[in-house]
Amino acid sequence: MGTIFLLCCQVYIYKFTKHYTRVKKQVFKRQSPTMQTTEKTEPKILELKTRLSEINDIEAAASVLYWDQATYMPPGGAAARGRQLATLQQISHSKFIDPAIGQLLEDLRPLEKSLAYDSDEASLIRLTRRKYEAAVRVPAQFMAQFSMHRTESYEAWAAARPSNNFRLVQPYLEKTLDMSRELANFFPGYEHIADPLIDFGDYGMKADFLRSLFADLRQQLVPIVEAITSQNPIDDSCLHQIYPEAQQLEFSLKVLEHLGYDFHRGRQDKTHHPFMINFSVGDVRITTRVYENDLGQALFSTIHEMGHALYEQGVNRDFEGTPLAGGTSSGVHESQSRLWENMVGRRQGFWKYFYPQLQATFPTQLGDVSLDTFYRAINKVGRTLIRTDADEVTYNLHVMIRFDLELQLLEGSLEVRDLPDAWNERYRSDLGILPETDTDGVLQDVHWYTGQIGGMFQGYTLGNLISAQFFEAALEAHPEISQEIEQGDCNTLHNWLKDEIYQHGCKYTAAELIRGVTGDALRIDPFIRYIRRKYGQLYTL
Amino acid sequence: MGTIFLLCCQVYIYKFTKHYTRVKKQVFKRQSPTMQTTEKTEPKILELKTRLSEINDIEAAASVLYWDQATYMPPGGAAARGRQLATLQQISHSKFIDPAIGQLLEDLRPLEKSLAYDSDEASLIRLTRRKYEAAVRVPAQFMAQFSMHRTESYEAWAAARPSNNFRLVQPYLEKTLDMSRELANFFPGYEHIADPLIDFGDYGMKADFLRSLFADLRQQLVPIVEAITSQNPIDDSCLHQIYPEAQQLEFSLKVLEHLGYDFHRGRQDKTHHPFMINFSVGDVRITTRVYENDLGQALFSTIHEMGHALYEQGVNRDFEGTPLAGGTSSGVHESQSRLWENMVGRRQGFWKYFYPQLQATFPTQLGDVSLDTFYRAINKVGRTLIRTDADEVTYNLHVMIRFDLELQLLEGSLEVRDLPDAWNERYRSDLGILPETDTDGVLQDVHWYTGQIGGMFQGYTLGNLISAQFFEAALEAHPEISQEIEQGDCNTLHNWLKDEIYQHGCKYTAAELIRGVTGDALRIDPFIRYIRRKYGQLYTL
Repeated sequence: MGTIFLLCCQVYIYKFTKHYTRVKKQVFKRQSPTMQTTEKTEPKILELKTRLSEINDIEAAASVLYWDQATYMPPGGAAARGRQLATLQQISHSKFIDPAIGQLLEDLRPLEKSLAYDSDEASLIRLTRRKYEAAVRVPAQFMAQFSMHRTESYEAWAAARPSNNFRLVQPYLEKTLDMSRELANFFPGYEHIADPLIDFGDYGMKADFLRSLFADLRQQLVPIVEAITSQNPIDDSCLHQIYPEAQQLEFSLKVLEHLGYDFHRGRQDKTHHPFMINFSVGDVRITTRVYENDLGQALFSTIHEMGHALYEQGVNRDFEGTPLAGGTSSGVHESQSRLWENMVGRRQGFWKYFYPQLQATFPTQLGDVSLDTFYRAINKVGRTLIRTDADEVTYNLHVMIRFDLELQLLEGSLEVRDLPDAWNERYRSDLGILPETDTDGVLQDVHWYTGQIGGMFQGYTLGNLISAQFFEAALEAHPEISQEIEQGDCNTLHNWLKDEIYQHGCKYTAAELIRGVTGDALRIDPFIRYIRRKYGQLYTL
Repeated sequence: MGTIFLLCCQVYIYKFTKHYTRVKKQVFKRQSPTMQTTEKTEPKILELKTRLSEINDIEAAASVLYWDQATYMPPGGAAARGRQLATLQQISHSKFIDPAIGQLLEDLRPLEKSLAYDSDEASLIRLTRRKYEAAVRVPAQFMAQFSMHRTESYEAWAAARPSNNFRLVQPYLEKTLDMSRELANFFPGYEHIADPLIDFGDYGMKADFLRSLFADLRQQLVPIVEAITSQNPIDDSCLHQIYPEAQQLEFSLKVLEHLGYDFHRGRQDKTHHPFMINFSVGDVRITTRVYENDLGQALFSTIHEMGHALYEQGVNRDFEGTPLAGGTSSGVHESQSRLWENMVGRRQGFWKYFYPQLQATFPTQLGDVSLDTFYRAINKVGRTLIRTDADEVTYNLHVMIRFDLELQLLEGSLEVRDLPDAWNERYRSDLGILPETDTDGVLQDVHWYTGQIGGMFQGYTLGNLISAQFFEAALEAHPEISQEIEQGDCNTLHNWLKDEIYQHGCKYTAAELIRGVTGDALRIDPFIRYIRRKYGQLYTL
């Protein structure tokens, strides 16, 4: 609570560089390798790690099964695969909520207190306790029932979406809402019923704080969108010629290699919905999809997922097999995918280096298209209906609509049956566009139909905000980064991100990390500054 | 014991067709769907199946991890993957040897006795008991130590093989031999120390019986090999032109599709050492490798693995999630890979249909090569050093050398340090050829360096023998099969194999199955007859 209160108060305080440096050094002092030393004197930490490593192995196995399901599994494997995944999840969950782990965490309190807050082992004990205490609150029976319901709900959505029939999913969504409330109520004492659900992805973030933060963001974004969309739209037809799949994939591999994605510890495969997944620090994979008539799809989804992957590949390898290995929150994770996708991948300087190579790959399609035309095309802003296709400027408006509707549903101020109308009304007011069908409206995202209602969307906008904060901090620490990117060299940026963010895994909460890296709390100014500067050059603002 | 004694006595008794039909119908009477009915009256069978299904899910997950390791995993994933596989194996083993399963099997004895021997549920209880009683005999600590040793031994082999240095692996192999004896001694009361080890793959087979069976086989094969190799060798240079990988893979997919491999429930990927693996009856995959200068490699390894896969795809889907789902022994499994690879895939009639298509795929390479030249090339017999590249006639000689050496090592009549000499001496006497290096000699197969010594090789030759017995029975039941294959139609054969063999999964032991399908015991005559007939046309015999 304390952390978040500070965060709320300080969100608009201007960042002082010196303060930033000092704070950062305090927070991120690297510990000596206490891990091994302590293991000798304290067998309980070893026992804890052994148990966690076993659980981690099972979770990693489930991830491999999921990856296979989304890439190569033949259709006939689906039924058994669902069962196999459920079995692994049930085993890892029951091993994690074993009272023996609770006892170990109790027994380790004195050790934890004797160590520095950010020592590897104190962090491990702290994080494990936080996750343990959350996990034991939710009864296994509820977990199983909710999981079963979500599977049914997903199937209903998959049928309802193409037939544009929200009424087919309405009863499922109503039950999802009931169960989401039930889930939240296993964590009594919240300020807002969405808070426990937000905690799953963005620990420590609060609904009321986010609502107010997002309202400010919306207030600043809407006039920018209006200014842009009142001008002549950018012509992006150069992206919509025919680009054969094989060359698109080949080029994306070249970009990945160049940006520092480690193929020794990863690979890229095709899938329907691109994602990043990791089975260990040594095996961090990404997937992409290719549209032959839309060059941007594969290109930017590849760089997006690579951003997630660079984060996971950069985690301290000593954390392997523990809950410390991995990104710290959905917001910080998304900050990395968006930083690489947008701040690097849609940057003019980036294409100074890469565009000649892209032209060489597609001479017929792009030989006569200038760098400037291409750069403008990949940064075209428009009032569109689909979140995942939205540009940088409007993207957060899509996200915030969903976030607000989640809160209203949970609060009871909106009924599920009125959701399509509420959705459409918000698209009209925020984006000035009205979905013609629910398929392009309330049925477009899978999140509510396969997860809970609450906590599913805030990470996307948090990611955009944090990415701008981190990128400003990187440029401040290393002003040469801009120049280097123009020469096709992202090493300084990548190394800075590794040192400041990636290596720490989940050691710090998002709030601690942002404070440590930027000397400041979460803020919207850097993002607005970034948007104004970039789009002020592309449009008249 | 009784079964095997009968088998030994009857192995040379001539098969009477009428007897065969009668016996088959007796043994294979399909049961009414007792499964569901019994579950209602007997909750313990449901509890057993629930436990077995969970174990099956974990084993399937381990298989997915193994498949991924052998196909797509980046090198950086190796260390964690080893740990993940070990964790899954340890969990599934400890869940299987749970005394609660032993108790359930005891409690289910009355039910088992009340049911027909070959009812689904009696078979499930019987098979589970057999596996349970074997599993509980081996201490978990020994399992872990042996597994660890085998990993080290494999690494030593991987280093010793390219450097042609048997002395590097000798100490590992000595320890493997000690531990193999220790493993066998967890099953006291055996006739030969290899018997418990053979049981793992080929349940019920006995070393003394196999030694005598193989001696007879060798006695009949050696003169055939001599007769063939004294003649001018076949010219197979047409297979050793340059065949681009993409077209080879494309053609192999066409063959798979045509032969009845169900791509809805399977797929083919590339790997170093081809294998078949299944994660459920609905997901049975194969892998292949392509040598651009050797057309036969991908072609026949594809059909070989497909044979294994047709078996697994053909198992009764009611057996899903139980130990009944799967091939019944390594010998019977290999009988299916060899039947499809050799008796179908290297058959003249088969290529009457497929060769024009192969020529169309490779017009430059094969346009001027006659069907007869091609057919002779894919059936070239020679005295060679490498088992996996050996032709149908000499293949069993390779296998039997290994089998005999395993027995001698276990018996103590051969020391590990003398193994290379013994190996070479047997190649000289049996195949008339001397390996110049241990790399092409005693270091060529991975089996002893990653498994135990004993029970690793007999399945290959058993498979060849059984394949000939089954194929004769199929032709006897459906003489039209020969004609159909020439027209590219393998459905009658495939359906017969499904009905007679595949659907039963592990319900019957290999001995019961052979008896049921052929009305006879395991015999060598059909294989010798097949070799004499086919190679009598290719060579003067």
